[in-house]
Amino acid sequence: MASTESGFLEKLYRDWGDRMAGHPEITLADMRALLDEWEKPTIEPEYVTYKAATVGGVPGIWVTAIGCDKSKVMIYTHGGGFCVGSSSSHRKLGGHVSKALGVSVLILDYRLAPENPYPAQLEDAVAVYKAVLASGIKASDIGTIGDSAGGNLAIASVLKFRELGLELPGCVIAFSPWLDMELTGGTLESNAATDGLVQAPVLEAMRGMFLGENHSPTDPLANPLKADFAGYPSLYINAGGAETLLDDAKRLNDLASAAGVNTTLSIADGMQHVFPFLAGRAPEADGEIAKIAAWYKAL
Amino acid sequence: MASTESGFLEKLYRDWGDRMAGHPEITLADMRALLDEWEKPTIEPEYVTYKAATVGGVPGIWVTAIGCDKSKVMIYTHGGGFCVGSSSSHRKLGGHVSKALGVSVLILDYRLAPENPYPAQLEDAVAVYKAVLASGIKASDIGTIGDSAGGNLAIASVLKFRELGLELPGCVIAFSPWLDMELTGGTLESNAATDGLVQAPVLEAMRGMFLGENHSPTDPLANPLKADFAGYPSLYINAGGAETLLDDAKRLNDLASAAGVNTTLSIADGMQHVFPFLAGRAPEADGEIAKIAAWYKAL
Repeated sequence: MASTESGFLEKLYRDWGDRMAGHPEITLADMRALLDEWEKPTIEPEYVTYKAATVGGVPGIWVTAIGCDKSKVMIYTHGGGFCVGSSSSHRKLGGHVSKALGVSVLILDYRLAPENPYPAQLEDAVAVYKAVLASGIKASDIGTIGDSAGGNLAIASVLKFRELGLELPGCVIAFSPWLDMELTGGTLESNAATDGLVQAPVLEAMRGMFLGENHSPTDPLANPLKADFAGYPSLYINAGGAETLLDDAKRLNDLASAAGVNTTLSIADGMQHVFPFLAGRAPEADGEIAKIAAWYKAL
Repeated sequence: MASTESGFLEKLYRDWGDRMAGHPEITLADMRALLDEWEKPTIEPEYVTYKAATVGGVPGIWVTAIGCDKSKVMIYTHGGGFCVGSSSSHRKLGGHVSKALGVSVLILDYRLAPENPYPAQLEDAVAVYKAVLASGIKASDIGTIGDSAGGNLAIASVLKFRELGLELPGCVIAFSPWLDMELTGGTLESNAATDGLVQAPVLEAMRGMFLGENHSPTDPLANPLKADFAGYPSLYINAGGAETLLDDAKRLNDLASAAGVNTTLSIADGMQHVFPFLAGRAPEADGEIAKIAAWYKAL
């Protein structure tokens, strides 16, 4: 059964829904201010420091747990439908990841849609990866990680690195990735009542901002469920059992597994979209992050 | 002349004004989300760690620069008209203060109005001060610090400590304090055009939420310009030259000085309300914080 503490996230999500419903003309700027409340579920991780940086021309923050191995880097692409979210909303979550994995985390403020539609996000991820490689970090010591739309980006950017002939990173981690730009997952309907945040009309609106009028929703770099995963790095995927995007995680796991990828799928019963946001607050999130750390250290 | 970088704060303030004007029915929850953008002007201070805590029953965060003297504490009460603002909006600013002064900073999420009108804020500040004393920190090693309405609280709480017969803290620091609940300062009019944020109608609305219908705007614990400062600790006050609340800072300095308090007034030409928010970004803020650190260390 879901912990009492984990209810904080569903409550926040439903509160956002009510506030957006009460203000249907909400501007993008106000939507971004609202979604920066994503930091609220996460409790400050102790012994973590932060530094603003521009890497490969992309702004962001370095998140560094005291004593971590700075020769290893996880590049974090935040969620928010490619339109909202920021290094602020994800700072504390990045701190928990840095502590648990024992490595530096670089949270990107990649360019957002609709001002910058696809493939601006992918271009930013490529520029950062090249810059981190150029700084002397080995490809095998780099990983990509992200949640929701940022989970898509963490996955798709590695497909793009492969297309560009770059040496691939050591691993990819995706929290509740949003992958299917055709919106065909069965849990979009079957979990609609239990998911406090992600509903098909929201995804349609965000897809429109991300891809614009003309870009295909089946481009494998925008929709990794259409991609070939042969030769892909070790992949960790999670999702909450209560969320509408559960089928995106499951289908990715099936696809990557069939392509021979070392893939792990972790589904947490009753949890909401990107439940690791509850780090420091709810045992499900702390347990999940500990599980990811064990997986990472065993690679 | 004001630096180019310092323009960031006025731009943010005027953007808030436009967004609020475009949404006159804005809810308190959305106003709080908007004002949490106060963190944006401040660049992440390096080598600072954070920890969530409840002290004296009041939630907040400990902000600790690596290597700082943890036997000394500044209790930070954030601004936002007693109604908005948070430990999130002020986290990075608190980090710059911790680094510069070389002490721990405790940023309080004291209870906000209108849900909790005066004197809830003062009660929280007292509870925290007592708890910090009880933890073994010497009164002379504690200071209170705050900005805007939180500057009022940093000042008024020490008046309350005196009333309660508590040993007084070593110093008080106020950034752009809002003190005069009667709104009689001449700069409210003369600087109305240059101040990007604080205008009399906004202060009237916030005063209404803070004091309610019946509480006197001349109570010295709500309006320290009506207080007796005899025996008050060393006091550092600043303000921006462009702001409407400039006269609150000047009148406080005159009042405290006449009462024999060791008081310092720092006015930064052309700067906006709470310009130290520009720490790490604009030289005026970094210079001001360095000046405060030198003042603090010489006490």
